[in-house]
Amino acid sequence: MIHRLPKYMRQLELLHQNGVNRVSSAELGKRMGQTASQIRQDFSCFGEFGQQGYGYNVTKLRDEIANILGMDRGHTAILLGVGNIGRALAENFCFANCGIDLKCAFDLNPEKFGKNINGIEVKGQQELEEYLARNPIDIAVLCVPKTAALSLTELLIACGVEAFWNFTGVDIALGHGDILVENISFSDSLMALGYYLKNLLTA
Amino acid sequence: MIHRLPKYMRQLELLHQNGVNRVSSAELGKRMGQTASQIRQDFSCFGEFGQQGYGYNVTKLRDEIANILGMDRGHTAILLGVGNIGRALAENFCFANCGIDLKCAFDLNPEKFGKNINGIEVKGQQELEEYLARNPIDIAVLCVPKTAALSLTELLIACGVEAFWNFTGVDIALGHGDILVENISFSDSLMALGYYLKNLLTA
Repeated sequence: MIHRLPKYMRQLELLHQNGVNRVSSAELGKRMGQTASQIRQDFSCFGEFGQQGYGYNVTKLRDEIANILGMDRGHTAILLGVGNIGRALAENFCFANCGIDLKCAFDLNPEKFGKNINGIEVKGQQELEEYLARNPIDIAVLCVPKTAALSLTELLIACGVEAFWNFTGVDIALGHGDILVENISFSDSLMALGYYLKNLLTA
Repeated sequence: MIHRLPKYMRQLELLHQNGVNRVSSAELGKRMGQTASQIRQDFSCFGEFGQQGYGYNVTKLRDEIANILGMDRGHTAILLGVGNIGRALAENFCFANCGIDLKCAFDLNPEKFGKNINGIEVKGQQELEEYLARNPIDIAVLCVPKTAALSLTELLIACGVEAFWNFTGVDIALGHGDILVENISFSDSLMALGYYLKNLLTA
């Protein structure tokens, strides 16, 4: 169910932006490709937000889901590795929309030190330990090459980082049962698509 | 189970590159953070690749999984939208490693027309329909802005594209039950991480 919450969040944010104040489970279901009863069941898990015959209050429901998702906790993050993916995230991805405060970025390449990407300063990776000693950080966004992934993860764990948003394609969670990892694996996703496509074309 | 296959593929490829010819379910399980019995159960679903007391033949198992994933089918793809994410994919992501032949890219910005990114030519989007009429394509990699996602999806479906690798954050599958969509949603993933982190910190 947790993986549906961000999708609800997105729809409710859209409705809110369009000035919609309330929405029925049927309407929300239609927008999300789910049944109304699935919607009602999901929302009943975390309390009462709907009123029969009235529907859900869009703003209240959005705020409650934001609360459940921890988006109001002021979680902080740093970005490791300002290559193509790291730069794309810093430039285009709105961390604040997910309730995350992206503090700064680190890279090994001296040519990038001091650069500013969309308000995010790039620091030298040799400053990382000192920075983390002064500024405890919740989430490390890992965009470094595969070869650097494991050693950097060890260092970050030693510096107290507990959550990783992992773009490296390396299974960094292995042997670290106590950290949180969300993986974005492009190749796993594309291979899965190839699998479904093969079965569609040979069906 | 299908979502574990790409992970098996990655491990077997690594073993193969390291010159390892056979691997036991226990060893493979250790590398993947799974039990040996889970490994044996997964592989038993698609025939017999192991031999008791000998283990699995790495190359044979890898080739079989590649076959199941359709990686040997020569699936073709085009990339739509050469912004930060599109460019990062074209520059750094090895489509061939997933068995996908990325043919070319399309963009609306005339300054990008004719550019070559890592061997991939950028064409003008006005050429898209004519291109697809001459070159049937299996997969569209959608890296366009949210506002363009739905209309472009309609156009691609009309041109015969059935599978979409979707980076737009828009639910393009809605109302198109007959297409295949694999979503890479950065915000869903980061929100999920925030949720787990909140629960870890308040536990």
